[in-house]
Amino acid sequence: MGPYVFARAGLTVFAELKFPFSLGSDNHSGVHPKVMAALAAANRGHAHAYGLDEVCELAKTEFRRLFGPKVQVEYVFTGTAANVLSLAPFLSSFNSVICSEMAHLHMDECGAPEKFWGGKLFALPSKDGRIFPEQTAELFQRMGDQHFSQPKAVSLTLPSEVGVCYSLDDLKNWSRFCREKNLMLHVDGARLTNAAVTLGVSLRELTEGVDVVSFGGTKNGLMGAEAVLLFTDRAKNEFKFYRKQAMQLSSKTRFLAAQFYAFLKEDLWREIAVHTTSLARGLSESLKDFPEIRVAFPVQSNAVFVELPKPWIHPLREKFMFYVWDPQTHLCRWMISWDWSEDLNQKLLNEIAEVRKCFPIK
Amino acid sequence: MGPYVFARAGLTVFAELKFPFSLGSDNHSGVHPKVMAALAAANRGHAHAYGLDEVCELAKTEFRRLFGPKVQVEYVFTGTAANVLSLAPFLSSFNSVICSEMAHLHMDECGAPEKFWGGKLFALPSKDGRIFPEQTAELFQRMGDQHFSQPKAVSLTLPSEVGVCYSLDDLKNWSRFCREKNLMLHVDGARLTNAAVTLGVSLRELTEGVDVVSFGGTKNGLMGAEAVLLFTDRAKNEFKFYRKQAMQLSSKTRFLAAQFYAFLKEDLWREIAVHTTSLARGLSESLKDFPEIRVAFPVQSNAVFVELPKPWIHPLREKFMFYVWDPQTHLCRWMISWDWSEDLNQKLLNEIAEVRKCFPIK
Amino acid sequence: MGPYVFARAGLTVFAELKFPFSLGSDNHSGVHPKVMAALAAANRGHAHAYGLDEVCELAKTEFRRLFGPKVQVEYVFTGTAANVLSLAPFLSSFNSVICSEMAHLHMDECGAPEKFWGGKLFALPSKDGRIFPEQTAELFQRMGDQHFSQPKAVSLTLPSEVGVCYSLDDLKNWSRFCREKNLMLHVDGARLTNAAVTLGVSLRELTEGVDVVSFGGTKNGLMGAEAVLLFTDRAKNEFKFYRKQAMQLSSKTRFLAAQFYAFLKEDLWREIAVHTTSLARGLSESLKDFPEIRVAFPVQSNAVFVELPKPWIHPLREKFMFYVWDPQTHLCRWMISWDWSEDLNQKLLNEIAEVRKCFPIK
Amino acid sequence: MGPYVFARAGLTVFAELKFPFSLGSDNHSGVHPKVMAALAAANRGHAHAYGLDEVCELAKTEFRRLFGPKVQVEYVFTGTAANVLSLAPFLSSFNSVICSEMAHLHMDECGAPEKFWGGKLFALPSKDGRIFPEQTAELFQRMGDQHFSQPKAVSLTLPSEVGVCYSLDDLKNWSRFCREKNLMLHVDGARLTNAAVTLGVSLRELTEGVDVVSFGGTKNGLMGAEAVLLFTDRAKNEFKFYRKQAMQLSSKTRFLAAQFYAFLKEDLWREIAVHTTSLARGLSESLKDFPEIRVAFPVQSNAVFVELPKPWIHPLREKFMFYVWDPQTHLCRWMISWDWSEDLNQKLLNEIAEVRKCFPIK
Repeated sequence: MGPYVFARAGLTVFAELKFPFSLGSDNHSGVHPKVMAALAAANRGHAHAYGLDEVCELAKTEFRRLFGPKVQVEYVFTGTAANVLSLAPFLSSFNSVICSEMAHLHMDECGAPEKFWGGKLFALPSKDGRIFPEQTAELFQRMGDQHFSQPKAVSLTLPSEVGVCYSLDDLKNWSRFCREKNLMLHVDGARLTNAAVTLGVSLRELTEGVDVVSFGGTKNGLMGAEAVLLFTDRAKNEFKFYRKQAMQLSSKTRFLAAQFYAFLKEDLWREIAVHTTSLARGLSESLKDFPEIRVAFPVQSNAVFVELPKPWIHPLREKFMFYVWDPQTHLCRWMISWDWSEDLNQKLLNEIAEVRKCFPIK
Repeated sequence: MGPYVFARAGLTVFAELKFPFSLGSDNHSGVHPKVMAALAAANRGHAHAYGLDEVCELAKTEFRRLFGPKVQVEYVFTGTAANVLSLAPFLSSFNSVICSEMAHLHMDECGAPEKFWGGKLFALPSKDGRIFPEQTAELFQRMGDQHFSQPKAVSLTLPSEVGVCYSLDDLKNWSRFCREKNLMLHVDGARLTNAAVTLGVSLRELTEGVDVVSFGGTKNGLMGAEAVLLFTDRAKNEFKFYRKQAMQLSSKTRFLAAQFYAFLKEDLWREIAVHTTSLARGLSESLKDFPEIRVAFPVQSNAVFVELPKPWIHPLREKFMFYVWDPQTHLCRWMISWDWSEDLNQKLLNEIAEVRKCFPIK
Repeated sequence: MGPYVFARAGLTVFAELKFPFSLGSDNHSGVHPKVMAALAAANRGHAHAYGLDEVCELAKTEFRRLFGPKVQVEYVFTGTAANVLSLAPFLSSFNSVICSEMAHLHMDECGAPEKFWGGKLFALPSKDGRIFPEQTAELFQRMGDQHFSQPKAVSLTLPSEVGVCYSLDDLKNWSRFCREKNLMLHVDGARLTNAAVTLGVSLRELTEGVDVVSFGGTKNGLMGAEAVLLFTDRAKNEFKFYRKQAMQLSSKTRFLAAQFYAFLKEDLWREIAVHTTSLARGLSESLKDFPEIRVAFPVQSNAVFVELPKPWIHPLREKFMFYVWDPQTHLCRWMISWDWSEDLNQKLLNEIAEVRKCFPIK
Repeated sequence: MGPYVFARAGLTVFAELKFPFSLGSDNHSGVHPKVMAALAAANRGHAHAYGLDEVCELAKTEFRRLFGPKVQVEYVFTGTAANVLSLAPFLSSFNSVICSEMAHLHMDECGAPEKFWGGKLFALPSKDGRIFPEQTAELFQRMGDQHFSQPKAVSLTLPSEVGVCYSLDDLKNWSRFCREKNLMLHVDGARLTNAAVTLGVSLRELTEGVDVVSFGGTKNGLMGAEAVLLFTDRAKNEFKFYRKQAMQLSSKTRFLAAQFYAFLKEDLWREIAVHTTSLARGLSESLKDFPEIRVAFPVQSNAVFVELPKPWIHPLREKFMFYVWDPQTHLCRWMISWDWSEDLNQKLLNEIAEVRKCFPIK
């Protein structure tokens, strides 16, 4: 079935997290101090529930500053929910969504999209998580055929599940294509800020031509908050009903909004994204000293995918917790969290050097 | 249609929350300082995601202490999710759930239960949110009839949506009935702690004979956390898949667990429940000085439902935000939050006295 | 729970059908000879599948003659499917449908509507299966409230489940109400032709102001065919996708169309409806000779509901199979099929006289 | 995306069916005279609805004779429904089904499976519609991982969508694999009888080791009837509820059963399958005289897939209606119906010879 089912052997085997800093996931890290402070600040007196409070207003201002005045901001609790609710309001159950075979939407949501809207995904082959309009031609030969689930949206992951970014031209091509075919264009942006930093553009430029974005917070130092950003008003009034029925309506919403407020205000988002992206790149550069290790994908976010010599995996995981992405090729994923540091990079490199001594590869 | 569709006229009309303390809902209040402290304490270093961290272990110990060693604890984000996930793992789509016409499950989840498991609710008439086995006889005359959605669970709200508690005998009767009929017994316990205090029993005694409980946190001083408590092992291994597909799997789970840990440790839950229940009762007692006001239901939780003279509603809401539950009868709901006080009770009573002067009722 | 859960005690107990003519249901009878002939006639050579054949064209002409030129005709296999597909294309999952507590949609579809569109029904109390706009006021007090499933359609059964007809004025009132409230108006017309005969109007007059009709065939002498009649073009292009996804797309469609063609051509529908309605009425008139028997509802279709003396039920069922609708009140349902006759009426009356002799009621 | 999205360019373009015999589909043909006679014979007097009649009993005897005494027979209206209801009773919504990329289940049901059970399909690449256990290894590396929809069934099409048969060994391998992995094994047998004839085995031998079969009737000379054959009793009591909720419960069931009774009695099924399979093979043999035509798949059922010279397609379709399966490769599908003949084969070959004269291919 090609590369698309990564085994993630580590996921079901509990690996103890001995060292206090993990490479296992950017959701292993905690909450950024500024986010924590914002939560404390929001905790005074009573406030209206369900998004009608002042903190929500403040956060909205920040979102508009960064994404343009038309953006509609809706909070949800998880990335899965952000993805599902970015799509469902625009789909009938007889519609399908085009994504990559590696898409989190396809491989890591336990069927939540299919369950909620009742349709299906068409997953296109992909080498690095990116897909392109040329791959879809056959799917459009049966438009209007009642036997065939009708494609209605495209979902791109940016950066992709293996940390690779679409270029702005790629995005423009998709946008043009979606207009032509009357499709919604969705971006799963669990780590969208890293893409903005890598591409050197503003969040607004990055999302131009996109209809709806899953804008991630939890993996970037928030406690637990995601946002659906709507750049279309086609679900303006209905979104809230879908969210409630999806069990994603927060009551004390100020505590979701406060997290994003801290994240966006004074561009903390950029500070974090610059930090994690450059640490990931730096680490990847330093790996050149270890020809035994192959960096499997261009490092364009906070992820470093490496094919490690098999004997190295176990001893390294003893120190730094991380997941084996593909047990066949010994592909491993190292995720750099907001609280990672140059110093930790160095510790990891030292550890690799140690392991090399014990397990030299001819 | 009888009393069951409360209008909640206030819900769609934004009422400004001028006074810093609201009677509108117990989700208008913020986070209890001990809960806030626990969140800060949980925020150190990295931890496994998805419930495999140490804080989850700590909280589990507390849950077992209070609910017995067999309880399986699963976190979700909202009360709607707790209700849906308490039921769905035990139901086929051709099953139905018996509840009251007033049930939050029926009237306030925007159809989330029906959407998620694909079945239906049979809502029984109720005067105070309670229902009784005798009311169900007709529903069981068509067991085995393929045309009829087959009842498979009973959902009770305790305390009910209008703050009334089932007696322990009521619960035993339901439990016996459910065993006989092979039904799951679910308790929607968004404010279960208030019921325990009112009935003078432990949480374990209260939930004996119950299969699954939605155990509320957010309305009791938590930031945003609910728990599904399973007292059966019939969904032991499958629950997690349902939760993920319901978009309710938290990644940084320690921050949900920490809230409950603080809530249960040293019985903060009881402290809060005693506080809010006795304030509600005290308020209700003092209202005897106002024969113009009818306390509509026995006060057995942190809710006081009052029928106010119509001219009093507007001026009172100017000061203390609250919702009109039924515009026909001028039934209003006052919810007492964890941070309410004797002093605020007195302020409210003074305000009522003031309003009476301006708008005397013959 | 009031009258709405009819027990139908007989449904799960297999009652042998000794006498060749049953009163159990109008689906106990077979296929009208003219329908059978049409099926044979349609069976020559090859034809396009999925509704593109000549027989479909012929039937369409008949439908347009009787229901007006704008009607869109879509075939399905069952009454359940007709009801679900009459509603689903117009609903989001957060929408609800208003119907009567007795509605087949609510009590006899095993949750198919909730399953397919993911929403819920609000079932209003009813004494004879009819409901009225006045009963709905409370349901519209929460429009726009995200916690509340939003009513979007009304489903009336005509004639009702107990054989009672709305008047034309009733229908006009509902139609006006639905326009005002932006609701779809659906009629479950499994036996619509009987209503047309009772009210003395054409099918077109009867369905004026209605958006969509489940037009029954199987209970009127067809082998197995139902039609969804759309008087709105709001789902013009999408209906086919919903039908396919609902597993209701017939391939050899000519054999569904042929049945309706025979049914409509030369107004066989009217002939049958006049026949069954007048036999039902005649029977009900003759029952005046038996003051022990109470005719429970006005006889306005092919159904006669009678409360029988308890001791009479068993011996009568030994001869003529029928269902006990409510074991508490001994309410029984007699359905008159297209092949029933005056002679059979008389046989039944004779049998009742016999039973009276054996089991005299003081 | 490889070969799996066949374009079926013809499907949306209405091609007139001038010649009375079509190669477009085996559902273009009508009803076999013996089936028609059985329908007429079943049409006498009244009978119980919902499968409790005598004809159903008769048909059951035939099914048991052919498929073994344990088979549970359940009727539905369409092949889509047979497929969905063969799977849904055994699946939770978090389960997935493994099938081929060409599977009707995946490409031609408009998402009905996903809609009804709420899960997803994992579609494996396939050259001729067959898939093999070796292809699935990666799907089982994440069993128990809550992020991943858990495979629970395998669906094979026999003969495949392009007319190729699994060998008995293939089936045994799948059966063994499914036992090991605790998977249900489903066979989509819309044309299963052709496979039995090709493989030279009885229907019972063919389905040994299979859990559930969609047994097709409509494409084999029935008017419109399909059967779900259950060889497991895991859904013994629940199937009927799923069927009703899927809107597939027939009331006048005798008219579905009668069709199958005629089809199975005196082995009419075999007579038809031998007839269509040998005509398809004979045609394919004769095509050797036309080296311009490539028979694209082994002919092991009633389907002949041919790659035609592009200029030949239009003139041939003028005479014999058929579908272009892939406009890129000019792959066309010819389906042989039960009423096709040697004479028609010859007419087609003559026509091809004519067309070759007008449009010679160098």
